[in-house]
Amino acid sequence: MKTYMECSRDELLSLKASLEEQFCTEEAKGHSFNMARGKPGASQLAISMPMMDVINGDSDMNTLLGNDTRNYGDWDGIGECRRMMAAVLDVKKDNVIICGNSSLNIMYDTVVRSMVKGVNGSTPWCRLDKVKFLCPVPGYDRHFKITELFDIEMINIPLGEDGPDMDMVEQYVNHDEAVKGIWCVPKYSNPTGITYSDETVRRFANLKPKAEDFRIFWDNAYCIHHLYDDKQDEILNILEECEKAGNPDMVYVFGSTSKVSFPGSGVSAIATSLANMDYIKKFMTTQIIGHDKINQLRHVRFLRDMDSLKAHMGKHAALLRPKFEAVLNTLESELGGLGIGTWTNPRGGYFISFESMPGCAKAIVEKCGQLGMVLTEAGATYPYGKDPQDSNIRIAPSFPTPEEMKEAAKLFTLCVKLASVEKLLADMDA
Amino acid sequence: MKTYMECSRDELLSLKASLEEQFCTEEAKGHSFNMARGKPGASQLAISMPMMDVINGDSDMNTLLGNDTRNYGDWDGIGECRRMMAAVLDVKKDNVIICGNSSLNIMYDTVVRSMVKGVNGSTPWCRLDKVKFLCPVPGYDRHFKITELFDIEMINIPLGEDGPDMDMVEQYVNHDEAVKGIWCVPKYSNPTGITYSDETVRRFANLKPKAEDFRIFWDNAYCIHHLYDDKQDEILNILEECEKAGNPDMVYVFGSTSKVSFPGSGVSAIATSLANMDYIKKFMTTQIIGHDKINQLRHVRFLRDMDSLKAHMGKHAALLRPKFEAVLNTLESELGGLGIGTWTNPRGGYFISFESMPGCAKAIVEKCGQLGMVLTEAGATYPYGKDPQDSNIRIAPSFPTPEEMKEAAKLFTLCVKLASVEKLLADMDA
Repeated sequence: MKTYMECSRDELLSLKASLEEQFCTEEAKGHSFNMARGKPGASQLAISMPMMDVINGDSDMNTLLGNDTRNYGDWDGIGECRRMMAAVLDVKKDNVIICGNSSLNIMYDTVVRSMVKGVNGSTPWCRLDKVKFLCPVPGYDRHFKITELFDIEMINIPLGEDGPDMDMVEQYVNHDEAVKGIWCVPKYSNPTGITYSDETVRRFANLKPKAEDFRIFWDNAYCIHHLYDDKQDEILNILEECEKAGNPDMVYVFGSTSKVSFPGSGVSAIATSLANMDYIKKFMTTQIIGHDKINQLRHVRFLRDMDSLKAHMGKHAALLRPKFEAVLNTLESELGGLGIGTWTNPRGGYFISFESMPGCAKAIVEKCGQLGMVLTEAGATYPYGKDPQDSNIRIAPSFPTPEEMKEAAKLFTLCVKLASVEKLLADMDA
Repeated sequence: MKTYMECSRDELLSLKASLEEQFCTEEAKGHSFNMARGKPGASQLAISMPMMDVINGDSDMNTLLGNDTRNYGDWDGIGECRRMMAAVLDVKKDNVIICGNSSLNIMYDTVVRSMVKGVNGSTPWCRLDKVKFLCPVPGYDRHFKITELFDIEMINIPLGEDGPDMDMVEQYVNHDEAVKGIWCVPKYSNPTGITYSDETVRRFANLKPKAEDFRIFWDNAYCIHHLYDDKQDEILNILEECEKAGNPDMVYVFGSTSKVSFPGSGVSAIATSLANMDYIKKFMTTQIIGHDKINQLRHVRFLRDMDSLKAHMGKHAALLRPKFEAVLNTLESELGGLGIGTWTNPRGGYFISFESMPGCAKAIVEKCGQLGMVLTEAGATYPYGKDPQDSNIRIAPSFPTPEEMKEAAKLFTLCVKLASVEKLLADMDA
């Protein structure tokens, strides 16, 4: 098979005509697909509906320790929920605080707290001339939005197969006092699906930050979100590694059940050192009397322990796999060998990351939009929405059905082909 | 009857001996009562348990508009919940954002946002040399803790029968640019139970703040929390009054169902102008994808509309009244005519405010502690925990049973008497 790059101008023109015809045909059909966000599909939501039955009007509402979940108290979460989320995040119960329905909100609060009052007594970031965060790219747009909102300068760090470019990370963190944090999705990364290698985690733990208030924001959003039973990524325990390396306070670990039970109605958690927790406590107990403990109880009574949690996640995986496979098979059959795109083949998480030819991502997403297909905005996976190569597109296959996903993937490849041909022709004419 | 002030030294000494004997007797009994916080009692929690049945594993989880509450979306709350909380707060639905389980958290977020990024584009408060808040006293300790945490200077404003001293409020707000806010619990005030008069509300609405970023923090926590069917306070609509006065953006109204359904598992709301909402949206949509919409749905399906809400609040009132009456009757029978204390007789809310002789509150609370009775710390109703007269004590009668409350109130009066006698004797000796 000939790649597009090997085609002559005339071949490309003829290809373009044919693709445009297909495009018009599809446009006329009035499709409607949404692959923009990591939203679980209806079939996934259904598997957590029994959770709505574990608490009813006659239920005992007390925790194992006898505290009434219906009243004020237990600001850091009920014991059994702390224990469960500790198991999920592979940390000790005493290092866990259960929060509300959103781990993003904990991250936001953590950044805001550091802005106004500093980190464990350091100078508040809002008093500094410059605060910088490292941003492995492509990454999660909502992380970048938080640091952007607070005028924190974001620095792109290339994300490879084993994690962020650690030479660059070390260079920045160990020598620039303005670097106060780094956003990480260490397992089944959003959007590339990679998992940090043991060496990467150890190099993180062994950073020698120039800034005492430097923190790793370790968003372990997909820690138990495997797609396969037999092919699963494992990741080293960052809290333990930081402790071993003499950096016990350097990391905040975040997680939630948003993609275990229900997005927006789950429980979230932060895991960190006891010293960090002491500092956080001062703020959190001023901010709120306590989070929703009834929902914590509901989750524990439904999800129970790691064995049943794994079984539950297996059901999610069984529903997600065909959607991922529909995309991956279509990408392979339609684009394989054409040289106009590469993509990831993740073993977990919620996304497939697509790399087009440089300068084509925006055009592809725009064309998809014309066909009635909503994708994450091109550029969103980079700070400030600026993808320097204009090549990364995040595909979220979870929401449509597998059949829809197959059709949508086909349309996507059509847009990739057309945008690529147009780009190649434009380059020839330039 | 002779007041304590009219007693001779010998009479006081003899009184003291007798009170000390009673105190020892009670101390030996090992009582255990908690009247520290506005926690609903077990019987109150029970009346909301049917809410646990309105959603089960077979329920339709869609909003009236057909949005799935189990998935991401509706960052500002589901329509029917916005409508319900708008009715509760006496505002329009379009002016309401539904948040998480805690209105305190919304207030905290509002202060923090203003610290880091200012108010609708004003200079961030953290960049100013001085930021001040007015604090009607006695007031709610958790309000004061928020402003204290962020080093905002708090200024005491005496709270009378009709609300804060508005001459003082106007003097500060209209002439001091550093004054950026005021904490208000305008109805069934915490702890005195008073409701702001129409004139007070109108004077609030007609403030001419020196600072463009001055805001009224209107915590309408007890807006539908009446104790009686026939004696109910009404309050003017502050949002409307501010609009009429040409100050549409000057107020944030807060409320929640914490004392309607379950403390810690309710829904909270902020109501404010559309311009303020636009600004808040920028932050809130970065902070969180959305709040717990299943819990919103659960609340709407259980509480339904204002008629059923009023009936529901009537059940709370029926349970609370005997507790309040137990305290009030005991205070009257034990302390009436002694001249050593005054107290409020609220028509709603969660507290009775007790004023001892100056310099006795700490001693009373300490003595109560010795008898196994936990009260809100003396001073807590003032900024920085400093009650200049050392006279205010907040009594929260909601948690114990009426029988317990009667016994506890008796013990409380014993401690009041003893502390007062000790104070009078000490003053004589000084």
